[in-house]
Amino acid sequence: MIDKGFDTEILSVGTELLLGHVTNTDARDVSEMLSKIGINVRYHTVVGDNPERLRRCVEIAKSRADIIITTGGLGPTCDDLTKQILAECFGLPLVENQAEREGLYDYIKYSRNFTPNNYAQALLPEGCTVFHNSCGTAPGCAFEKDGKTVVMLPGPPKECQAMFVRSAIPYLQKLSGGQIVSHSLRIFGIGESAVDQLFREEMDRMVNPSMAPYAKECDCLLQITAKADTAAEAEEMIRPVMEEAAGRLGEFVYGVDVECVEEAVFALMEKNGMTFAAAESCTGGEVAARFTDIPGASAHFLGGAVTYTNEMKAKLLGIDPALIAEKSPVSYEVAYEMADRIRKISGADIGVGVTGLAGPDGDGIHEVGTVFVSMAAADGVWVRELHLGEHRTRSFIRRLAGNHVYDMMRRYMTGLRILGAEKTI
Amino acid sequence: MIDKGFDTEILSVGTELLLGHVTNTDARDVSEMLSKIGINVRYHTVVGDNPERLRRCVEIAKSRADIIITTGGLGPTCDDLTKQILAECFGLPLVENQAEREGLYDYIKYSRNFTPNNYAQALLPEGCTVFHNSCGTAPGCAFEKDGKTVVMLPGPPKECQAMFVRSAIPYLQKLSGGQIVSHSLRIFGIGESAVDQLFREEMDRMVNPSMAPYAKECDCLLQITAKADTAAEAEEMIRPVMEEAAGRLGEFVYGVDVECVEEAVFALMEKNGMTFAAAESCTGGEVAARFTDIPGASAHFLGGAVTYTNEMKAKLLGIDPALIAEKSPVSYEVAYEMADRIRKISGADIGVGVTGLAGPDGDGIHEVGTVFVSMAAADGVWVRELHLGEHRTRSFIRRLAGNHVYDMMRRYMTGLRILGAEKTI
Repeated sequence: MIDKGFDTEILSVGTELLLGHVTNTDARDVSEMLSKIGINVRYHTVVGDNPERLRRCVEIAKSRADIIITTGGLGPTCDDLTKQILAECFGLPLVENQAEREGLYDYIKYSRNFTPNNYAQALLPEGCTVFHNSCGTAPGCAFEKDGKTVVMLPGPPKECQAMFVRSAIPYLQKLSGGQIVSHSLRIFGIGESAVDQLFREEMDRMVNPSMAPYAKECDCLLQITAKADTAAEAEEMIRPVMEEAAGRLGEFVYGVDVECVEEAVFALMEKNGMTFAAAESCTGGEVAARFTDIPGASAHFLGGAVTYTNEMKAKLLGIDPALIAEKSPVSYEVAYEMADRIRKISGADIGVGVTGLAGPDGDGIHEVGTVFVSMAAADGVWVRELHLGEHRTRSFIRRLAGNHVYDMMRRYMTGLRILGAEKTI
Repeated sequence: MIDKGFDTEILSVGTELLLGHVTNTDARDVSEMLSKIGINVRYHTVVGDNPERLRRCVEIAKSRADIIITTGGLGPTCDDLTKQILAECFGLPLVENQAEREGLYDYIKYSRNFTPNNYAQALLPEGCTVFHNSCGTAPGCAFEKDGKTVVMLPGPPKECQAMFVRSAIPYLQKLSGGQIVSHSLRIFGIGESAVDQLFREEMDRMVNPSMAPYAKECDCLLQITAKADTAAEAEEMIRPVMEEAAGRLGEFVYGVDVECVEEAVFALMEKNGMTFAAAESCTGGEVAARFTDIPGASAHFLGGAVTYTNEMKAKLLGIDPALIAEKSPVSYEVAYEMADRIRKISGADIGVGVTGLAGPDGDGIHEVGTVFVSMAAADGVWVRELHLGEHRTRSFIRRLAGNHVYDMMRRYMTGLRILGAEKTI
């Protein structure tokens, strides 16, 4: 699978990265996209806005990589050195690009902060392919020289991603001999190490297609990748492997090529024309916030109650305060009521509830990490008691509790058994 | 401010970083902490689990840095190469550390996945200072050889951070001549470029203390750093600069050394013993979720209603459907009712509301990015109409709308004018 001639280094330029003020998400995003088109990233380097150190980093990259992709340092200020140094290291003069200068003029004449140094952005290495920046002012570019391919992208993540997808991928794809296709099975309910054990023999044996498990924040994935002359052939190679793997993982697969379990729930709700509402305690609105971050969520999410106190559970949901006092707010019974009542109040097809202890403080009764998740539908109410780990962080427990809520909905909508939960009507 | 002899390179080892499956937060976290103790990070490098490439990266780091800090690759599997290669590059044998081996035995005898290769983690470079891992199994270490200082940290972010703070900082601090102290003013309501203009002259002139502005996701900060023989002296140097800068930025400073505006609101609520509740539409629970992610939030946040549909605004908050139909759900009047009613329902000191269009679809009336934020308190209700930019992403608009909600609360609790809003009672 390793192509000679496609070893890539991503060189990110910016002192703010070395101070730890900014995380290098550009290197991650570009790496992820490159791996999908069959280009192997071998190194990431970060260097500050210092001409001498940047020059030395470019020389090292030239010595060990075939493709050098820079991010950052294309702006108008004196800190922005990338184009000058790269052009210099490859012996190319910078020349003004007329179209980009005119574009800059259009853009900045409306800006409150117009300064003539903005025009420096239109200076580009002679003979390069110009990448217009659809989200900002600084253009990127690419050129081939001395047997190396150089691609320069802007630093702001949105600009970097947009330019990579729109301009750099088509430019680079012509270098890659063949097409890489990659799909991932997203898995919730069993961990990366269990997936690793399940497929150890295949992973050691298979080369093309290949498979590998990866841990994500609160779930994991199995990625299957193939390379062939055409995308259709690569798809054909992947299909039986995907089917076999999905069959073996069974109910734990929540989606293919999705990013999170709420995205899978969104797709199922689209398919079935269903709606839901949420009553949240320990997740504090996060279950609602995660779903509503998906464009189009309003067709399926009606609303929710964040009932952080016992009083709010009574006022917004009408739960009997005596029940809460008797059973404690972190209980099977209160979780049951939360899902059932938010469903009835909202008129949604599904109501979900979540109450528990995300920590760091406990309630003197339950250990931190104790969470009850619940789901009410036309044909029953299910409640599940979870122990998500008392040494976990508050954020982790909240996130994982939310995944369990979404996984209950997924299982309900696909007719799977609802794990560990009890059907009570 | 640049010390000869403290140039640092952070070398992160792991193929998952090069595939883009994981973001290199270790390099960011370690960089941020190093900058606070006066150690200059010059380079970050990422390399995969490949002995030959790792070896070459170590050689490059030796040639250009005085301190090499590695992250990752200390675990028990055959992919974990960092200790072996570093020891080899510095001509040190690996020897088994008896205390760590016994610690591993205690740890893994309870583990379901015990395998003898776990003991490889107790092999460490001869003569090194061992850093015990309080959050995991793989110990880290540090040594000095050939005029270089080497520190090895585990890859999982929680383990890396904990070990850095507990073991690496004390180890490194003895190398640094003097103490660095740094504070940041967090700013909302004016942008990084305006801050840059406001302090351009000082920033160009000042060396110690120094100041620099940085953009964050939806706000910015001004960082002021000083170096002196003792921390107290550095604090003394920073104090007048902080006072002057805070005075000039005035009402736009929402906190010192805080991470986000909800943290500033949390601190003010702690101080004043106040509570709040939230009625959210376009932010979909995110205002509640952000606050409740703070440990201790339950003392100040009573709850909220996520009223994503008109019906839920009527059912959960009791807003007259005729008003919604007449004025539209994205309106001054509906925002007013949301804040006022959630305050009355919950009995909180402050009620906040937010309704708007986060996009990408519009409502045919307002442009995307139109958001009304509102706040009700004992002495009035305030509503503000915002236009957050129709070309912004859904996530950005939601985040920024939430910042405006929190900033209203901050301004109210500190007696500042509430920007652009109207007091109506």
